[in-house]
Amino acid sequence: MSGDMANSSAGKVLLTGDRPSGKLHLGHYVGSLQNRVLLQHQYSSYIMIADVQALTDNFERPDLIRESIYEVASDYLSVGIDPNIAVIYIQSQVPEITELTIYYMNLVTLARLERNPTVKAELAQKGMTTSIPVGFLCYPINQAADITAFEAEIVPAGDDQQPMIEQTNEIVRSFNRTYNVSLLKECQALIGKAGRLPGIDGKGKASKSLNNAIYLSDAQNVVEEKVMAMYTDPDHLKVTDPGKVAGNVVFSYLQAFHDDKEELRDLENHYARGGLGDVTLKGILLKDLEALLGPIRAKRAQISKDFVLDVLRTGSKKAQTKAAETLARVRSAIGIDYFA
Amino acid sequence: MSGDMANSSAGKVLLTGDRPSGKLHLGHYVGSLQNRVLLQHQYSSYIMIADVQALTDNFERPDLIRESIYEVASDYLSVGIDPNIAVIYIQSQVPEITELTIYYMNLVTLARLERNPTVKAELAQKGMTTSIPVGFLCYPINQAADITAFEAEIVPAGDDQQPMIEQTNEIVRSFNRTYNVSLLKECQALIGKAGRLPGIDGKGKASKSLNNAIYLSDAQNVVEEKVMAMYTDPDHLKVTDPGKVAGNVVFSYLQAFHDDKEELRDLENHYARGGLGDVTLKGILLKDLEALLGPIRAKRAQISKDFVLDVLRTGSKKAQTKAAETLARVRSAIGIDYFA
Repeated sequence: MSGDMANSSAGKVLLTGDRPSGKLHLGHYVGSLQNRVLLQHQYSSYIMIADVQALTDNFERPDLIRESIYEVASDYLSVGIDPNIAVIYIQSQVPEITELTIYYMNLVTLARLERNPTVKAELAQKGMTTSIPVGFLCYPINQAADITAFEAEIVPAGDDQQPMIEQTNEIVRSFNRTYNVSLLKECQALIGKAGRLPGIDGKGKASKSLNNAIYLSDAQNVVEEKVMAMYTDPDHLKVTDPGKVAGNVVFSYLQAFHDDKEELRDLENHYARGGLGDVTLKGILLKDLEALLGPIRAKRAQISKDFVLDVLRTGSKKAQTKAAETLARVRSAIGIDYFA
Repeated sequence: MSGDMANSSAGKVLLTGDRPSGKLHLGHYVGSLQNRVLLQHQYSSYIMIADVQALTDNFERPDLIRESIYEVASDYLSVGIDPNIAVIYIQSQVPEITELTIYYMNLVTLARLERNPTVKAELAQKGMTTSIPVGFLCYPINQAADITAFEAEIVPAGDDQQPMIEQTNEIVRSFNRTYNVSLLKECQALIGKAGRLPGIDGKGKASKSLNNAIYLSDAQNVVEEKVMAMYTDPDHLKVTDPGKVAGNVVFSYLQAFHDDKEELRDLENHYARGGLGDVTLKGILLKDLEALLGPIRAKRAQISKDFVLDVLRTGSKKAQTKAAETLARVRSAIGIDYFA
């Protein structure tokens, strides 16, 4: 079947994705997208637009999710994820994942879920400490279903997502032990370089909710406005003043996007001793960003809405074919394949 | 479609069923089966063999569940549930229910689940107070999916299941309000007469786990042995001794199965004042039970394994057709029907 095409192109399966709760920005590019474009040639990649997971904390905002799916898929295609190599799919279009989730829920205790540090931190961040939606609490189980459905062994993840990988592997071992099979595969995190970008306002990391990010789909004039509004060193009033590099958002972005590292070292020294103005510096960054975003923007302009929908439809079907194979084996292992 | 056939036969939909964790016994007959045989003519009935729910507290005993499905279905057919009128189906063969469950999980808080008195009592009974499987904790949400999938408005239930109905209706209202639809239907419990039978040992109610029940599939000699072993009045040593009616299991069964209530009153009085022996009394009960179980046994003998499997396959398909219609509307209401 078509789902096997992705499998045969490489040995191991990689699973990654995003919650569709807004457009993707440069932080996503540095933190994951850039890497995915390379990894798609190394692993059989499944890239999931996790709408079911997005619903766990946005269940009352389905419109945001619906719109974001198209944006996120366009971002993927614009940065160079190749739908002929990687499988791009929408989580809700693979209902086999919900079925796996239900069976895995029997193998996890409430106490174990409540101990998950990632979920704990997110609950605190969202102010959901007293009123926890069950769907949100259980999303690590849903993730285990996502990963195992495709027999993924490689999961690109930040340090903070290590507990999710551990939860998945616990479920894998528990399932295999309980039903006396060696069916589900353990996975491992592929920890990327700590490439988090700060927001343009210098207040924490770039994020959709803080509206302090440069989006991959931003027009050139918008990027220019955002770069010019970037937080630098508030004490660097005159060009001749010595300026601070640490905490200066322009330098954080240059460190991520300026390829000539020697030149960057010179710029940092120059800025620190005085004589290098913010506007000059921002002009350099803008050139770097446009070198990246220009081709992304050009590619996006070539992509029709119909093409994006076609990619999502085709990818979701491939993903469903693969997940259905896993589910059939899971049902058989549990012994509920009565009519098979 | 074939699923509509059941719908058109009556106005309202009724949902009921059993966890397949053993054969059905006289307690089930008095408590629900007897009633279902009548209700199938009044409501469009869906009768579910709840294997997914049985897995929540028997996940390590799938063989028991697998075997019990055939037994329970045979019990249904033997007592007179007509597969041409009622839809008999296996829960796991309607995966749409798991998908509904996942979406409903976003609408229920952990605190709300932990407050459910039925779940609390069951957890205590099973000794699962410290190590609660998430699947078990969430089964009321799964039940809400069962009920709403078929637009059931009538749910036969014991008093102790009233909290389940309330949980379902809360989800129904929350879903309709959140997605601004009037899609899901509230349901009501149809509280039956409190027809619980005690176990033959007089220790609590008849139950599979205590092995103190008379099964609908028991052979005549087994029924005879069980009746002869029934707990009566331990102080009723000689026939001439006065005997106690209260707490006497034989009288509990006669109250359930002896049709001539006037004659029963006479027997009770005779036993109380002395002169009526246990063996005579048990002979009367045995005749009553055989009048019921004889035809059930005869019917079971006519039912082939293939026929039972065919009923389950056909019923599960009908149920799936109906549940898929509901799910399509639910997905559309949430707005995740991207390719529809």
